[in-house]
Amino acid sequence: MLDAEVALVRALAVVGLAPSSAVGDVASAADRIRFDISDLALRARSTGNPVPAVVADLIAQTAQASADHIHQGATSQDIMDTAMMLVAARTLDLVIADLDHVVAGLAAIARAHRDTPMVGRTLTQHAVPITFGLKAAGWRSVALDARDRIAVVCRSLPAQLGGAAGTLAAVRAYAPTAPTDLGARLVTVYSETLGLSTPTLPWHTLRTPIADLGAALAFTAGALGKIAADVLVLSRTEIGEVNEGVGGGSSAMPHKANPVLSTMIVATSRQLPALAAILVAALVAEDERASGPWHAEWQTLREALRLTGGAAHAAAGLVDGLVVHPDRMRSNLDLTHGLILSEHAYVDLATRMPAKAARTIVDDASKLAVSSQISLKEAMRSVEGAPSGSMVTDPAGYLGFAAELTDIALERQAAQ
Amino acid sequence: MLDAEVALVRALAVVGLAPSSAVGDVASAADRIRFDISDLALRARSTGNPVPAVVADLIAQTAQASADHIHQGATSQDIMDTAMMLVAARTLDLVIADLDHVVAGLAAIARAHRDTPMVGRTLTQHAVPITFGLKAAGWRSVALDARDRIAVVCRSLPAQLGGAAGTLAAVRAYAPTAPTDLGARLVTVYSETLGLSTPTLPWHTLRTPIADLGAALAFTAGALGKIAADVLVLSRTEIGEVNEGVGGGSSAMPHKANPVLSTMIVATSRQLPALAAILVAALVAEDERASGPWHAEWQTLREALRLTGGAAHAAAGLVDGLVVHPDRMRSNLDLTHGLILSEHAYVDLATRMPAKAARTIVDDASKLAVSSQISLKEAMRSVEGAPSGSMVTDPAGYLGFAAELTDIALERQAAQ
Amino acid sequence: MLDAEVALVRALAVVGLAPSSAVGDVASAADRIRFDISDLALRARSTGNPVPAVVADLIAQTAQASADHIHQGATSQDIMDTAMMLVAARTLDLVIADLDHVVAGLAAIARAHRDTPMVGRTLTQHAVPITFGLKAAGWRSVALDARDRIAVVCRSLPAQLGGAAGTLAAVRAYAPTAPTDLGARLVTVYSETLGLSTPTLPWHTLRTPIADLGAALAFTAGALGKIAADVLVLSRTEIGEVNEGVGGGSSAMPHKANPVLSTMIVATSRQLPALAAILVAALVAEDERASGPWHAEWQTLREALRLTGGAAHAAAGLVDGLVVHPDRMRSNLDLTHGLILSEHAYVDLATRMPAKAARTIVDDASKLAVSSQISLKEAMRSVEGAPSGSMVTDPAGYLGFAAELTDIALERQAAQ
Amino acid sequence: MLDAEVALVRALAVVGLAPSSAVGDVASAADRIRFDISDLALRARSTGNPVPAVVADLIAQTAQASADHIHQGATSQDIMDTAMMLVAARTLDLVIADLDHVVAGLAAIARAHRDTPMVGRTLTQHAVPITFGLKAAGWRSVALDARDRIAVVCRSLPAQLGGAAGTLAAVRAYAPTAPTDLGARLVTVYSETLGLSTPTLPWHTLRTPIADLGAALAFTAGALGKIAADVLVLSRTEIGEVNEGVGGGSSAMPHKANPVLSTMIVATSRQLPALAAILVAALVAEDERASGPWHAEWQTLREALRLTGGAAHAAAGLVDGLVVHPDRMRSNLDLTHGLILSEHAYVDLATRMPAKAARTIVDDASKLAVSSQISLKEAMRSVEGAPSGSMVTDPAGYLGFAAELTDIALERQAAQ
Repeated sequence: MLDAEVALVRALAVVGLAPSSAVGDVASAADRIRFDISDLALRARSTGNPVPAVVADLIAQTAQASADHIHQGATSQDIMDTAMMLVAARTLDLVIADLDHVVAGLAAIARAHRDTPMVGRTLTQHAVPITFGLKAAGWRSVALDARDRIAVVCRSLPAQLGGAAGTLAAVRAYAPTAPTDLGARLVTVYSETLGLSTPTLPWHTLRTPIADLGAALAFTAGALGKIAADVLVLSRTEIGEVNEGVGGGSSAMPHKANPVLSTMIVATSRQLPALAAILVAALVAEDERASGPWHAEWQTLREALRLTGGAAHAAAGLVDGLVVHPDRMRSNLDLTHGLILSEHAYVDLATRMPAKAARTIVDDASKLAVSSQISLKEAMRSVEGAPSGSMVTDPAGYLGFAAELTDIALERQAAQ
Repeated sequence: MLDAEVALVRALAVVGLAPSSAVGDVASAADRIRFDISDLALRARSTGNPVPAVVADLIAQTAQASADHIHQGATSQDIMDTAMMLVAARTLDLVIADLDHVVAGLAAIARAHRDTPMVGRTLTQHAVPITFGLKAAGWRSVALDARDRIAVVCRSLPAQLGGAAGTLAAVRAYAPTAPTDLGARLVTVYSETLGLSTPTLPWHTLRTPIADLGAALAFTAGALGKIAADVLVLSRTEIGEVNEGVGGGSSAMPHKANPVLSTMIVATSRQLPALAAILVAALVAEDERASGPWHAEWQTLREALRLTGGAAHAAAGLVDGLVVHPDRMRSNLDLTHGLILSEHAYVDLATRMPAKAARTIVDDASKLAVSSQISLKEAMRSVEGAPSGSMVTDPAGYLGFAAELTDIALERQAAQ
Repeated sequence: MLDAEVALVRALAVVGLAPSSAVGDVASAADRIRFDISDLALRARSTGNPVPAVVADLIAQTAQASADHIHQGATSQDIMDTAMMLVAARTLDLVIADLDHVVAGLAAIARAHRDTPMVGRTLTQHAVPITFGLKAAGWRSVALDARDRIAVVCRSLPAQLGGAAGTLAAVRAYAPTAPTDLGARLVTVYSETLGLSTPTLPWHTLRTPIADLGAALAFTAGALGKIAADVLVLSRTEIGEVNEGVGGGSSAMPHKANPVLSTMIVATSRQLPALAAILVAALVAEDERASGPWHAEWQTLREALRLTGGAAHAAAGLVDGLVVHPDRMRSNLDLTHGLILSEHAYVDLATRMPAKAARTIVDDASKLAVSSQISLKEAMRSVEGAPSGSMVTDPAGYLGFAAELTDIALERQAAQ
Repeated sequence: MLDAEVALVRALAVVGLAPSSAVGDVASAADRIRFDISDLALRARSTGNPVPAVVADLIAQTAQASADHIHQGATSQDIMDTAMMLVAARTLDLVIADLDHVVAGLAAIARAHRDTPMVGRTLTQHAVPITFGLKAAGWRSVALDARDRIAVVCRSLPAQLGGAAGTLAAVRAYAPTAPTDLGARLVTVYSETLGLSTPTLPWHTLRTPIADLGAALAFTAGALGKIAADVLVLSRTEIGEVNEGVGGGSSAMPHKANPVLSTMIVATSRQLPALAAILVAALVAEDERASGPWHAEWQTLREALRLTGGAAHAAAGLVDGLVVHPDRMRSNLDLTHGLILSEHAYVDLATRMPAKAARTIVDDASKLAVSSQISLKEAMRSVEGAPSGSMVTDPAGYLGFAAELTDIALERQAAQ
């Protein structure tokens, strides 16, 4: 908040509403100030927000001539909102760096495992073979989607300056003879000083920036949650196809190495949708300052930034440390004794006989394979009407366009 | 779903996997078909989704040679997801048209009331004067934000085609000697046939399109909810500054004209955040087809489209019929006997004395005005130390840059 | 809604405000009426709710003398709210029956598998052995919790009758000389006629019944979702410890048997928390009839009842058909070559040496077992300082109080 | 968490698994310990929860013979969950006290204003008269509902003790020859020592207590939100029927007294539904310890307790300070020049002519009154067919059973 107050004095000086000496005075007072947070919190209760207390403390540290220009023309919400945008900007820079790290790491994994066959699973069951490269390319794809959404929001975080009800009336009253573009100029200088974007209108109850932040953060948490959810499945003891390089110890069981990073990411992905719901609901903000919707944003946005930042950092660590076990992927492909190739068996027949007849043969053979615990290939031989076919028996021979799709997906870059 | 199945046969024919005669056969069968919806629903329970039943009905209506190419290489999710995108595309076209209507209507209102003074309210209390033009320009601004977000999503709705686990393995098995770009070509033709965008990867468990839809719809509901919430406040009996042109009758009270459109919009804005939360949470979709997250999207997305579509249409009607009462706006400005100009009184003094002293004088005068039921101007005269000032007594003289901000905001056009 | 209107006429007759002949007239008109739903929906738009249209249709079917008593003293919300409670009551009866079925089925499973050892899994990893009986008893426990919560809500669903703003003023005006308890008597007769509970106050904007419904339904969906989530894990191809008796077929893969019931239950459990959030948020209903919060309840409650009812029914089918594979449970216990007993190894040592030293030995042995692919027992022999112990090697020998806990849990009955 | 660890040692001593000297040693070590919170947080990242770090610190402060019994037989989740319940218990005691204060204060207000007429508002419009006593009795009713729900949850907060996977296997291994009820006895002593209820089963993934807490807290926030929302409406400058005794100052506008307490309560009521949604969704917790759902509870529950506690305290202050303005209530009743009595006019006629004709007359008169700016009574005289009636002209004469309903509602006491 102090950054916003200092930037305001600087902007007032640039447009001629404050002496340039005030800038240094206020900035150095802001540097000196040390808040007693719990005292601030108590004083904030009576005004409903902490800005009046912060302003009072800043004024108390500043010589009067300069102090009179502190908060000049502003309202509490100008400072709170601007401060929220500054916090968001700083957090999102870190999130973008972590997402870039995730994207690069997943690209390397996808390339390395472009042709590593593994089980494709649908509704928890073995379906048909895929490659781990395709899976990793998919993870990269949603991480890139998150990166692009965060970058768009990050570029457009606006400063807030509108005065009591968004008209900048007090600013104009301080300079009644100034040209009519004084307001716009002041807002522009203020925004640029802070490295934030210049808003078209004061947005005290036009809460697009907050709703957009919520949506981008929830998307990011969800995208990373997809990756983590897959890692949790693949690192189950019975599956064992990947594991986190550095697992978490257990206080009760000496042998355990828990997928702690994935767990923390999934925990985040379960909270962000609800937090984003609070933030987008805050769009419905009546009047020129809302009673409740605005106040509901504060802690929610902070938690949303914190959790998503933590999840992005955990995801970077997860990708860095991920250990892949192609041997387990291979052996799991054989668990169903060929049933994972039942679709191929069907297509193979369907190119030589009516589809319905082909389907019946493969259905019967599949059931027989399960009930008699024999391989699908053997079962096909026992089913009436099944011609001897050219059925593939190596899952690596039924990977479709997995490698080509991986290559195409890896060409995509961040939208910038 | 039939559109998706027909488009698939067409795409198969274009890339040489089906005879061109199949296209017409399947299309005309699709035209003929009449579903028994409750029967479909019952058959859908056993497979967990309605596609197998739809495919069976379509095959039953088609000659075998052509029927064998129905659903060839596809999985149920390919058809469901594509159908969801088609439904979304059709709905969003209507939403965009309604939002354009809202934006245009609000521009006209903002222009007409560029200089109409009214009370600016913060935390439910009279704060300082604003203009109705500025308020309407703000409404237009969030409606434009919604329009831009919907348009981005609408342009990128992708078709879905990946086969059993996203590798298009069956497609490749049908044409083992085809070039390696067959898969990509098939997906491109299929997508273009449907007027949807071509996905980089099959997105069976990369649910960006769904999460984005949820976010854009929730934003839209919230943006319209902001407008409606303001209308509800302004049309309260005691305030009476606007009313819906055609109000709703009451079954019990003959005289009532209820703000029905605003009410329906607000009702939508209270549901969409939660629905969008379900949709963004569905990003966390494990494996190559998720058990639950995917299925949770179906009804949720339908309701989200339906409700937001309804709200956009109601908002168009609301803007069309809105009746504005500048006289009530004017008389409400006088309710506080000048206290609405207390900020001006303060600034006026602060240009001539230290800010702190000025603040004390105006605080004292404000309290006196309230306790003695006199005007602020009169009270100022009674307060010790108050110099005779040039305090504005007409609220229309303290509008700050409201008109200039309105002009700037109206320059903004849809991002296209 | 017709049931509510008829009950109102009956109640009016009982307290002497309508002739008794009106009851039969209106009831038979209600029986005759056939609504055109889409016409009703269109007419509902102009009034903001469907009651005026329903009342008009009912009046049109009734002779005037009796028709004059239709809706007498009531407001639209009286009828809508009462109708919602009737719909809820009918749905909850079905839900309770299904939950009773689930509870009984799980009790039988828990008893049958009281001593069936299986892997206990924490954070996706094998932890220590448990029994399937204990797991099933836990499932039963949350199903009972759901049953108890639904039963409480079901018993207290109130009728609604308050007139225009909750004072029953019109009722009193129709009988100005009646005793002052006429209002309470009318509400009591009306409620009892409908089989609903009698409210203390009209609850037009005191929405406890709706919030409670939302909470109980979301709890139920979550409780059933816990069971389904476990079934999904245990029925993974690699784990195979249970499967749904009747699996869902796949349109692409002939061999698949998908856990469709669990999937549908999980899908519900992902929607209900958000729907309940809408309903509890509707508590914040301003005035004597709220603009938006009330209207947001309608579709939300209907979907919540529908989805939870479907999930309860699916859960009954899931429990009926569940196939348990003790052999797979047993063989999975051996997958870690004894590491699942590392806690026991530690406790065994800790009773004979300082805990810290014991922990070091077991940690070292566990690491050695993993790196050398030998059993924990063998590894213990190789670790320096490890005394030869009495370590259990059969997982069934380290089940703690699983059986006793199961017995205790099964004693609990529905709270009724 | 230290309380839980100490209670565990005490319980172990009571059942004979630890020497009684250990109790004092561990308790005094716990008293001495001073955590470095940020160091704890960092150490917690590697294990995924803070318990191992806390246990290590506690052990380091304790002589070895006693230290060996710290955390004996427990797992991290036993301590985390128990600690959450202790935090909840302490917070809920405060919440109940504040709710009792709110309930008592509202009873006094309702009694004092049992016969104070005011406008009943529906869909933002004047409807018919009510009393402020009835409104306050309604507020008390939902506050009591909240009080009852919190009390139920508060009484049943359970301790958690199940060991690694809920079987208490380690406990049994420490005492292999102990009777089979040792586990149950240990849990009972542990729970009673902590003042928590004794669970039937370990609830590591049977999360009923958490879901119930979420529901009760969200209900409370919503109930208080209803009261606050009404206060916000009634304290609008144009309405002015109540105001918060001590309003919040504004940093920009000297005259303002903002309804700060109501605003903070409404802000809470907008967050709790989403937080409760996270908590009830955590019911879907797979396995014997879930990867994500459990971890998502921690911050969410803390925020939910904190916010609701703050709202309850603010509500107590709101009720204490509430200033009621019967004069403004009275003058607002006259704003519509009698239209607020249109329902009475209708009923008055309907007792003497067919309902439909009566309705037409009052509709016409109402329209005439609005268009000609005359009173309803005058307008009635001008409408054709209107008999001269006994229409009430004093709103205080059309209050229905408001006073009787208030009396009945005030009889209700907390369910205890």
